Amino acid sequence: MDSSGFVVEPIGVVRSPLRRRADAPRRVADGAPAAILDIDERFAAALERVRPGMDLVAVTWLHQGVRDVLQVHPGRDEAAPLTGVFATRSPDRPNPIGIHRVTVTAIDPPTRLHVAALEAIDGTPILDLKIAIDSEA
Amino acid sequence: MDSSGFVVEPIGVVRSPLRRRADAPRRVADGAPAAILDIDERFAAALERVRPGMDLVAVTWLHQGVRDVLQVHPGRDEAAPLTGVFATRSPDRPNPIGIHRVTVTAIDPPTRLHVAALEAIDGTPILDLKIAIDSEA
Repeated sequence: MDSSGFVVEPIGVVRSPLRRRADAPRRVADGAPAAILDIDERFAAALERVRPGMDLVAVTWLHQGVRDVLQVHPGRDEAAPLTGVFATRSPDRPNPIGIHRVTVTAIDPPTRLHVAALEAIDGTPILDLKIAIDSEA
Repeated sequence: MDSSGFVVEPIGVVRSPLRRRADAPRRVADGAPAAILDIDERFAAALERVRPGMDLVAVTWLHQGVRDVLQVHPGRDEAAPLTGVFATRSPDRPNPIGIHRVTVTAIDPPTRLHVAALEAIDGTPILDLKIAIDSEA
């Protein structure tokens, strides 16, 4: 199997009142604050037709994730049975990529997107944005 | 803004009857075939508790994506207005990361997952798997 890697480059960064991983809710449903997706101005053209009210999927680099962890106790619950990280949403995983469905609430031109709720911490690099599609991830 | 990159390493590869990008449906709803997620055996422990019937999000590297494209005509429709790639699902984008919700139908131990429908082409590197959560991406 091909074991070579690929290089991803941040397109922007999360601005959030969440400062530490321990402060982050495990899921948006647990109560995540509003945040800003601060996109590099080099990518302004890639935001054409992004509008308030739109749902996007933000793909992030969970920079505090631990890459050699293969099993965790889900939900930070030591009583829960050890589970493979591919059956969880743990930030600890071989490639610590996060995916987050967000609703755009406002845009500061050219490239700052305000979003309604995001569980990623301040400083999390953003790798990609896509329009969200119902019924799929 | 931080412009340094991160290295992602494939955890496996897609096996599919779809051989060419032009053959791939744009979305699962357009009719995607069954496929296999062939995970590297180094990551067998990370699949613990993955079971048939489970919905996962597969994160892939869209290796035929063109990284310097910032705007596209959505839906391969030249009549559609140019749109920023961050408002589309185009495989052409700065970091060509794909996300795909899949249903596991069977498992060949230790690490081959059969999935019901996947629009990625044969040979697409897989970067991550997560359990799918309804109502979010």
